[in-house]
Amino acid sequence: MTPTSPKLCFIHAIAIVVALASSSLHADEPLASWNDTATKQAIVEFVERVTNKDLPDYVAPEDRIATFDNDGTLWGEHPMYTQLAFAIDRVKTLAPQHPEWKTKQPFKAVLENDLPALAASGEKGLLELVMVSHAGISTAEFEAIVKDWLETARHPRFKKRYTEMTFQPMLELLAYLRANDFKTFIVSGGGVEFMRPMTQAVYGIPPEQVVGSSIKTQYEVKDGKPMLMRLAEIDFIDDKTGKPVGINKFIGKRPIASFGNSAGDREMLQWTGAGDGARLMMLVFHDDAEREYAYGPANGLPDTKFGTFPQSLMDEANEIGWHVISMKNDWKSIHPGDAE
Amino acid sequence: MTPTSPKLCFIHAIAIVVALASSSLHADEPLASWNDTATKQAIVEFVERVTNKDLPDYVAPEDRIATFDNDGTLWGEHPMYTQLAFAIDRVKTLAPQHPEWKTKQPFKAVLENDLPALAASGEKGLLELVMVSHAGISTAEFEAIVKDWLETARHPRFKKRYTEMTFQPMLELLAYLRANDFKTFIVSGGGVEFMRPMTQAVYGIPPEQVVGSSIKTQYEVKDGKPMLMRLAEIDFIDDKTGKPVGINKFIGKRPIASFGNSAGDREMLQWTGAGDGARLMMLVFHDDAEREYAYGPANGLPDTKFGTFPQSLMDEANEIGWHVISMKNDWKSIHPGDAE
Repeated sequence: MTPTSPKLCFIHAIAIVVALASSSLHADEPLASWNDTATKQAIVEFVERVTNKDLPDYVAPEDRIATFDNDGTLWGEHPMYTQLAFAIDRVKTLAPQHPEWKTKQPFKAVLENDLPALAASGEKGLLELVMVSHAGISTAEFEAIVKDWLETARHPRFKKRYTEMTFQPMLELLAYLRANDFKTFIVSGGGVEFMRPMTQAVYGIPPEQVVGSSIKTQYEVKDGKPMLMRLAEIDFIDDKTGKPVGINKFIGKRPIASFGNSAGDREMLQWTGAGDGARLMMLVFHDDAEREYAYGPANGLPDTKFGTFPQSLMDEANEIGWHVISMKNDWKSIHPGDAE
Repeated sequence: MTPTSPKLCFIHAIAIVVALASSSLHADEPLASWNDTATKQAIVEFVERVTNKDLPDYVAPEDRIATFDNDGTLWGEHPMYTQLAFAIDRVKTLAPQHPEWKTKQPFKAVLENDLPALAASGEKGLLELVMVSHAGISTAEFEAIVKDWLETARHPRFKKRYTEMTFQPMLELLAYLRANDFKTFIVSGGGVEFMRPMTQAVYGIPPEQVVGSSIKTQYEVKDGKPMLMRLAEIDFIDDKTGKPVGINKFIGKRPIASFGNSAGDREMLQWTGAGDGARLMMLVFHDDAEREYAYGPANGLPDTKFGTFPQSLMDEANEIGWHVISMKNDWKSIHPGDAE
C-alpha cells in the first residue's frame, strides 16, 4: 500500500475537516454535537470512572479497548448498506463482459434496478452478488477499485460521497475516547477490505484496528511478483455471535466499551458487558426520519431490510442498562458540515 | 482479561528486567547485544533511511510496520517448539481422566516419553495432540492454563522459564524499532492464544498485534454468562503462504521490515520485499551450538524437525539480499541475563 495517492486526496481533505471539527474548533468541548442529555452524561461519567487512577474502576490505558460497529453506527446504512451499493455499481460496470447476466438473477434485477426482485433473491442472491463483485481479483486491485468508487459514488438522497455520510457525534466520540487513551476498533459485519481503504482518513482508525467479514485470499507468485488473490469463498462472517469471536480472534482483549445499532451487535454488547469493572454499552437508534432515517421495528418504527433494531433488542437494552442513543434527541447534528 | 494477576508477577518482573536491559541501561546504545558487523549496520542504515524526512525512502510512522516470526526468531524452538512442550505436559496432566491413552497413539508415546514414536505419528498425530490439549475449554480457561504453565515449566537444557528463552538482541531490535515509531507485530505459525498471554510482558507487543494460527471458537451463553468455547477444529494456519494471508487479514498493511528464521517465513519475506521503497528482510540462522543450537540443514548444519532452514532458503536469501543473522557472529549474547 502506498502511503498516499491522488485518489485519496479527497478522503484526506475530509479527514482534515473532521479533525478540525472534532478537535481544534471544539478543543474544550469534545462532544460538541451531543445535546446535554443523560446519554452524553453517561459517556463522560464512564470515561472519568475508568481514567481516574484514584477510582476503583480505573483501567490501564492498554486495556481501554472500545469497539464500534460501522454500518448504522459510524455511518449510514439506508436506503441500503454502502457495500451493497458498491456491489451493485460493480455488477453494472462488469455487465458488458457478462451478457448472460441480462437473463440471470440476481444480476438481471441489478441491471434493471428492480429492487423488489433483488430482495426476493434473498441472502443467497446477495452473497452471489458480493462474490462476483468482490472476488477474482488481487487485494491490490480491489483496494484501488474501492478507493475509486468512494471518490465517485454519491448517496441517492443526500447527494454526498458515502465518506461524508458519517455521523458527526460519533466522530467526536471516537476522538474523545482516543484523547483519553482508548484504542478504537471497528467490529463490523461489513467486508474488512471494503472498509480499510477509508477508515484511517475518515475515522482516524488504522487498517490494523478494523475487524470485519472477509472472503478467503490465496498467495500466488505471478511473473515473479507475489500477490494475494481474492477467492469466491467466505472466510469469516463478523456478525451476531461472530462479533465476540472476531473480537477474540483479532484483538485478543475484551472491550470495556462497545457501540452498535442493530440485532447484529447484540452479542458484542453482551460480551463487553460480561467483563469485570465499569462497562459502557450503547446502541444508536435511528429515530430521525427528517435529518436521517427512522427504522426499528422497535418502538413502532418501520421495519426495514437494513440494520434491523427489533423490539427484543430494545427490551434487552432497557433491562440490562445498555444506553440507547436517540439520533433525534441526543444529537445536535447528524453529518459533518450539517447546520446544527 | 484482568489487567494484573499474581500469576503474571513473574512475567512482569521479566518485562522490567528486559525494559531496563534494552532501554535505560543502554539508552545511548540501542542494539548493545549486537556485534558491530554488517548485519547491525544494515538495521541501523535501514531505520535511518525510512525515518529521515529528507531522504527519498522516508516512510510515515503509520506505515512503519515490522513483522516478527516467534519460534526461532524471538525465542528458542529447540529441542522442540515451546507449544509442543506445553501440549505434552497438558496431555500428561489430563491422562488420569483418559485411561485409554495408555494404549493409544500418539498419547501412549507422550506418556512413555517415547519421542521417536511421537515423531512417527506425524503431523496427524501432533495435530491430535494439540486439539486434545488446546480445545474443549473456554478461552478464559485456556488463558489461565497457559499462564500457569509458563510460570512453572522449565526448558530442559537451560533450566529457565520459556519466557526467559527469548533472544536479547531481538528484544533490543524490537525496542529500537518502536523507539523509531515502528509498530511491531508477531506473525507466527504458533497458536495465537498460546502467545498472547505473554507477548506484552515479554516482548512489549500487545495481544492485538499478535497474528498466529488458531482453532475455531464458538460464542455460548451458559447460565447467563457469555463465553467463547474452543473447538477441535482448525481455523487458520499462519505459516508459509499463510503468513502473507494472515498479514493481510489481521494487519491490512504490507510490512516494510520482516524477520524470520525458517522455511515457514519465506513467503512473509517475499511479500514484504515486493512492496515499493526501502525494505529490510532478515533471517536468524541458528549456528551456535555452544550458546544455543545449531541447525539447518543449510550450510551443512544438522537437519532437525523444528525450524528447518533449508539450503534453498539460504540461496534465495543470498540471491535477493535478505540478511542472514549469524547467532554466533552477530550476537554478543543470546538470552537475557547471559554474560556477554
